Amino acid sequence: MPGDLEPLKSTSKAPGYRRSLNWEILPFGTMPVSDETFALVAPATMPQKPRQTDFQLVRVKNTWYRIKKGEALSDCKDEITLSEAKIGECVSEGGISWTIEAPIYFCYKVVETYNILDPSNTTLLWGHITDPQQLELATSGKRKLRRFIVIDEVVDELYGSKVREYFEENNVQHKILALPTTEETKSMDLVLNILQEVQSFSIDRRTEPIIAIGGGVCLDIVGLAASLYRRRTPYIRIPTTLLSYVDASVGAKNGVNFLQCKNKLGGYTPPVASFLDRSFIQSIPRRHISNGLGEILKMALMKHKGLFDLLKSHGKYLLDTKFQSYSGSADHGDAALQTTRIAIETMLEELAPNLWEDDLDRLVDFGHLISPELEMRVLPSLMHGEAVNIDMAFMTYVAYARGLITAEEKEQIIQCMKGLELPVWHRGCSWALIKRALTERLKHSGGQTRMPLPTGLGVAEIFNDTSEETLERAYKLWVRDCRTVLEEEPAAF
Amino acid sequence: MPGDLEPLKSTSKAPGYRRSLNWEILPFGTMPVSDETFALVAPATMPQKPRQTDFQLVRVKNTWYRIKKGEALSDCKDEITLSEAKIGECVSEGGISWTIEAPIYFCYKVVETYNILDPSNTTLLWGHITDPQQLELATSGKRKLRRFIVIDEVVDELYGSKVREYFEENNVQHKILALPTTEETKSMDLVLNILQEVQSFSIDRRTEPIIAIGGGVCLDIVGLAASLYRRRTPYIRIPTTLLSYVDASVGAKNGVNFLQCKNKLGGYTPPVASFLDRSFIQSIPRRHISNGLGEILKMALMKHKGLFDLLKSHGKYLLDTKFQSYSGSADHGDAALQTTRIAIETMLEELAPNLWEDDLDRLVDFGHLISPELEMRVLPSLMHGEAVNIDMAFMTYVAYARGLITAEEKEQIIQCMKGLELPVWHRGCSWALIKRALTERLKHSGGQTRMPLPTGLGVAEIFNDTSEETLERAYKLWVRDCRTVLEEEPAAF
Repeated sequence: MPGDLEPLKSTSKAPGYRRSLNWEILPFGTMPVSDETFALVAPATMPQKPRQTDFQLVRVKNTWYRIKKGEALSDCKDEITLSEAKIGECVSEGGISWTIEAPIYFCYKVVETYNILDPSNTTLLWGHITDPQQLELATSGKRKLRRFIVIDEVVDELYGSKVREYFEENNVQHKILALPTTEETKSMDLVLNILQEVQSFSIDRRTEPIIAIGGGVCLDIVGLAASLYRRRTPYIRIPTTLLSYVDASVGAKNGVNFLQCKNKLGGYTPPVASFLDRSFIQSIPRRHISNGLGEILKMALMKHKGLFDLLKSHGKYLLDTKFQSYSGSADHGDAALQTTRIAIETMLEELAPNLWEDDLDRLVDFGHLISPELEMRVLPSLMHGEAVNIDMAFMTYVAYARGLITAEEKEQIIQCMKGLELPVWHRGCSWALIKRALTERLKHSGGQTRMPLPTGLGVAEIFNDTSEETLERAYKLWVRDCRTVLEEEPAAF
Repeated sequence: MPGDLEPLKSTSKAPGYRRSLNWEILPFGTMPVSDETFALVAPATMPQKPRQTDFQLVRVKNTWYRIKKGEALSDCKDEITLSEAKIGECVSEGGISWTIEAPIYFCYKVVETYNILDPSNTTLLWGHITDPQQLELATSGKRKLRRFIVIDEVVDELYGSKVREYFEENNVQHKILALPTTEETKSMDLVLNILQEVQSFSIDRRTEPIIAIGGGVCLDIVGLAASLYRRRTPYIRIPTTLLSYVDASVGAKNGVNFLQCKNKLGGYTPPVASFLDRSFIQSIPRRHISNGLGEILKMALMKHKGLFDLLKSHGKYLLDTKFQSYSGSADHGDAALQTTRIAIETMLEELAPNLWEDDLDRLVDFGHLISPELEMRVLPSLMHGEAVNIDMAFMTYVAYARGLITAEEKEQIIQCMKGLELPVWHRGCSWALIKRALTERLKHSGGQTRMPLPTGLGVAEIFNDTSEETLERAYKLWVRDCRTVLEEEPAAF
């Protein structure tokens, strides 16, 4: 009977809150009939003008209801929870369309700690927990702790016994998986290998975070594995190189290479926590320190004159002491501590408001317009931070050629780079490669170059109007000034 | 010189806004020295009591700065953008820890359309675009449209020529990849196959969404592939079965099976749009209609008496007409239209506020506590919606045994299920299996059963206190009433 299809009354509030149907009921007889069984046709009684209704979502007991914005739930004695999600409904000739807007709050910690592998330091056990109730449960000893750890095999050689000791002394049931994590092995295969081991260890998705200990590649691979497992398993990052200390550990990105393309597959799920212990950095070669300094210098040039001054004055000291804190050198204060803190703070400022990189105007892209092409082309001869620095050196000349910085400022920047023992030029970085890289950039940044350039020391802006003539003039100046510094061969210009 | 490390002045506002350092500078001489080079020690001058500062983030020109909550940027003449992201900083003896909170707004559309493969229907070309500027660019004809389509091979046999015609007539450069998408092939291997083809077709990550046409498995696989590609490539879902029409197309979930576990790997990235065309449903077998009706009934039992009444009165008609709208049956009105709309609306209400399933109390889990065990055990003899219905039938008896619903209500529910030609019992669903499944449930839902149960017709709540005695009593009643209906063999009780 047609009566079956009348709208429900919205007044009945017991036992739950019941809703009315928000669209009219269409008696079928009024619909035109298609002569083709394949095709459904739009009901003719649909409103001529689209009608938009915006709904909020409220929870009463365990049920979510949509209500019109501003509408009250009268006579509802139960506690009501309002969601930030919204549903818009548009009824038109073509049917209904719903638009869903739902925010997801990512929350993660970046924590400086000392002696992270000292069994009495509990950071690694529950430093990631924020909720007091969960912390109480975790520390109560009622539940046996279990942890799955992936460690880079080189790091394992140096620190593996300390890691084992740590978990044994703290009575944690654990599995340590040592893997080669390099650009060559950074693949989905390795992710699946990790996941197979995770599955056989059998972790609790909610309370047993996967721990990654290593450089950026290791942190990226494990991050992807964890975010895929059961649609999201918490993970913890422990960086062991300077580059990953100030870069991979701070943001949300993870990924693997695919079909010879760098980080082609991945995601943006942040770790629950990154634990930073500078003492790991003492084990890496001097060149790797320079490599990390390249990314730190990027932040200095883009937005922090104080950081630039620190690098200028204390660069050699930082290289010599490998970012450790030693006494007897009052002149340098705790330069290592300050440098890493400012690098992380400035990076967090840029990443937190743009965690999923929806905004394409990113200062952190400085040094990353030309370097991806260069890095892949000359692999493995340049490290990431080195390629970034060559890109930044060229861009410094572009800023100078555009009149954004003075000759003296340009000189200070190049001298600072040299002081950090970073290459300021590479013969692989030809004019042809620069043009190709910038064309590629256009494709992936919505049709605009979005070129971050320094406009002074520690300040920058993003430009879309650098002419080819300016780029070429900058290139010639750059080659003239910088070419002979590190290499003698002629540039491919 | 120590002077090098003095705090920067926060007053300098030109050319950008410069910030002060927010923590004290520590002259190094005051730090205790460790006798072990491995260990770094906490600076002794760190504050005894942790000091917490909460920062907001503001953008001035292209640079993000953190400012204390409530702090003003005096003398700043540039436009200021405030982010919703926050950074909390806690300085203590142990060092600094930062807490980052950043919301990501997911926005997607679910759109009903008719004759989606009619070349004059432009939904498939730019129905996903919300931004008017982007829409203008897309429809201007300035840029040649390109689309990569993955289609289930069975759907391809039925509709492939129409799909090709659609893109050819609309002058869209396209690649159609027909694949077998079944529970058996639902793997990371298939995801990587798709991505290889995507890479060789070379799509623009920002403007060329990947299109998936098929049932739930196809939509899940393509969703995962797209969300991995370049860390997130937009994709469009076009469901061709009733189950995927009301389920997979509405939410954010995607995934593949791994090591014999259902959907063990995946994520929560929603499509940019789901386009719903009911005419596809006419091609699926009657049993598949029942399969989809299982998930629709779930929503009815949990939260919509009107939907339950529709299913009760028009169930057979919906099965007979395969959810198409025909004339000549005024009694049924447009039951198909209403049923699907309410199913989608109620599903959206529950999913939108909990897109990443952070809240473990989910009404949509009804029918999904025991069915995963059952489904995997008897595969392929039960379809998903059938296994869900068997679970729901048992749970209806649990609700009855707890006194939440009357005998008459229980009877109405069971009769409705039978009317939808859904199994209400299966000999594989033994008491042992139920106990095992509920133990497994505890593990993945934070130690509580979180059992949704009907508390009337179209209303429900979530319970954590169903005793084993009640479950056993319910099981016996269920076996007594339902066993002989579909199968004659004795239950394994």
